[in-house]
Amino acid sequence: MDHALRLAARGLGNVWPNPAVGCVILDAGGLVAGRGWTQPGGRPHAEVRALSQAGERARGGIAFVTLEPCAHHGKTPPCAEALIAAGVAHVVTAMTDPDPRVAGRGHDMLRSAGIRVTEGVRGTEAARLNRGFVRRVTQGLPLVTLKLAASLDGRIATASGQSQWITGPEARRAVHALRLSHDAVLVGGGTARADLPRLDVRGLGTMRQPVRAVLSSGPLPVLPQTGAPFWHLHGAADPTADGAKGVVISTAEGRLDIDAALRALAERGITRVLCEGGGTLAAALIHAGRIDDLVLHSAGMILGGDGAAAIGPMSLDALSGAPRFRLIGTRRLGPDLEQTWTAA
Amino acid sequence: MDHALRLAARGLGNVWPNPAVGCVILDAGGLVAGRGWTQPGGRPHAEVRALSQAGERARGGIAFVTLEPCAHHGKTPPCAEALIAAGVAHVVTAMTDPDPRVAGRGHDMLRSAGIRVTEGVRGTEAARLNRGFVRRVTQGLPLVTLKLAASLDGRIATASGQSQWITGPEARRAVHALRLSHDAVLVGGGTARADLPRLDVRGLGTMRQPVRAVLSSGPLPVLPQTGAPFWHLHGAADPTADGAKGVVISTAEGRLDIDAALRALAERGITRVLCEGGGTLAAALIHAGRIDDLVLHSAGMILGGDGAAAIGPMSLDALSGAPRFRLIGTRRLGPDLEQTWTAA
Repeated sequence: MDHALRLAARGLGNVWPNPAVGCVILDAGGLVAGRGWTQPGGRPHAEVRALSQAGERARGGIAFVTLEPCAHHGKTPPCAEALIAAGVAHVVTAMTDPDPRVAGRGHDMLRSAGIRVTEGVRGTEAARLNRGFVRRVTQGLPLVTLKLAASLDGRIATASGQSQWITGPEARRAVHALRLSHDAVLVGGGTARADLPRLDVRGLGTMRQPVRAVLSSGPLPVLPQTGAPFWHLHGAADPTADGAKGVVISTAEGRLDIDAALRALAERGITRVLCEGGGTLAAALIHAGRIDDLVLHSAGMILGGDGAAAIGPMSLDALSGAPRFRLIGTRRLGPDLEQTWTAA
Repeated sequence: MDHALRLAARGLGNVWPNPAVGCVILDAGGLVAGRGWTQPGGRPHAEVRALSQAGERARGGIAFVTLEPCAHHGKTPPCAEALIAAGVAHVVTAMTDPDPRVAGRGHDMLRSAGIRVTEGVRGTEAARLNRGFVRRVTQGLPLVTLKLAASLDGRIATASGQSQWITGPEARRAVHALRLSHDAVLVGGGTARADLPRLDVRGLGTMRQPVRAVLSSGPLPVLPQTGAPFWHLHGAADPTADGAKGVVISTAEGRLDIDAALRALAERGITRVLCEGGGTLAAALIHAGRIDDLVLHSAGMILGGDGAAAIGPMSLDALSGAPRFRLIGTRRLGPDLEQTWTAA
């Protein structure tokens, strides 16, 4: 299952609106006969790829799948049927698919066909991997990762506004890998207007670019052409066309609303969002309790209290009201320190 | 020598104005016969302690000493003479003593007596250990460690001013250990007036408390009685007595000067200073290039841009002018993350 989970992770950011699934098939002798993971765009599914690799060796074998196989006829026949047809003797899954079209029916279908089914193996790890998909299916919201690159005193620019580059090339490359594992990159209008960011994945040979989403009630400039979709999350019911030339998504009547914006993304199939600032949007997301993971790149420099803050004002009174995060881990990125924290 | 360095480190913060030295003596058969480190207040020296433990077993043996043995008659006879008298065959040292009263004369004295001398073993580690002493002797300045405890966005209090506690008990205990390894704890007048801090070492069974130094041109309140010395670093030539009832050290004519204040500390024998804020003093020390190590305790919370900044304004224009630090390491302290950075 660990192997299948590693395969599944390859799909993160590339398979929305589908879940990123991994599948490993052992033949009757216990040797690996097939491996698969959800392909870009969500099809073919992991099981189909692994079964196709295994061929006749799947008969009497064991399939390890990171998510319950689907049981419904969508654009492809259900994977549970494919596993039955291939003659697999035992299916081990990490978690039940929360999609109401599946939700246990995949496991039932396998058992009805006489296949032995073991559920919940590495369930915690699978739940973490699938957080974005589960969130979208069960709550209509995406997972949100906030990326910050700041000095040791939490600043993202000097008093005079200079900000490029606070972190080194290793950290910036890690940001491209982060974008690769998310379905959409989200920034606020101020950042879009000030930086005209590309927000694309570069240097990693990727096939599918994340959607570029900008949350702003104001008009936006034309961002650099990258081939990636551009969505403007706008606070008006009938926004006038702006320079962005992207998809304009109205989130609510006349006002910006964090949850409405995130719901608009989830409705369009987005499961994982990477927020790259600026400070106002980051503060609003944190205040709304909508940050799941926080990836902080700390550069070994001090910029002083008159530098630009990484996070905007939050009007906090008591420490007990501060949003809390739990440390997952750290690693060095050249001269910089990456810290990963998750909502506590 | 690694063993001797670990012994030496026990003296840090307890032996000023002397260096913290460690000594391990092996007998002629290669077994450990004696171990010693500089005792609180600086005497007895490490070699004397180790020789006294070794007794006759020192004869024909090897002494590992983290600093060149002293050659001058101070309050005690020179350690080089003691090593000669004990009949040690070989002395291995990590570095030359920069004190002009020694500065190679200890090594010379040993060689003249026919003892084999090997210098520079673990020289880099010994130089790091002795940074405070070397700085004081060669530049008339102490080593300065800046300790910060802040939220992930670099804040030390909420918008309404609440600050206790941002970090947990494990981090606060680590601060006591930090104080223990420094000769003096330094804070600015604003912090002294606002917090009336004790600034003492608690819960670690320590014998000697660090000096409490407050840098302020204004009058100070009476800090809590802890038994530790209290020095007021004052910017006036003839400051009027204030409520502090501590030693008043005038640093310069009518103005506060970071280097003058640090020199005043070094002149009184202080080799290692731990600065615990506030933000104005920290910014001034950083701006003056006087921070050697930065120990940052990061708490897993976000307080927002209207919270109190850990570091005061620095009027930085270009990123290239920002003070830089190199990552030494990280460790978890309960829920908090300790990062140690050193001036680059």
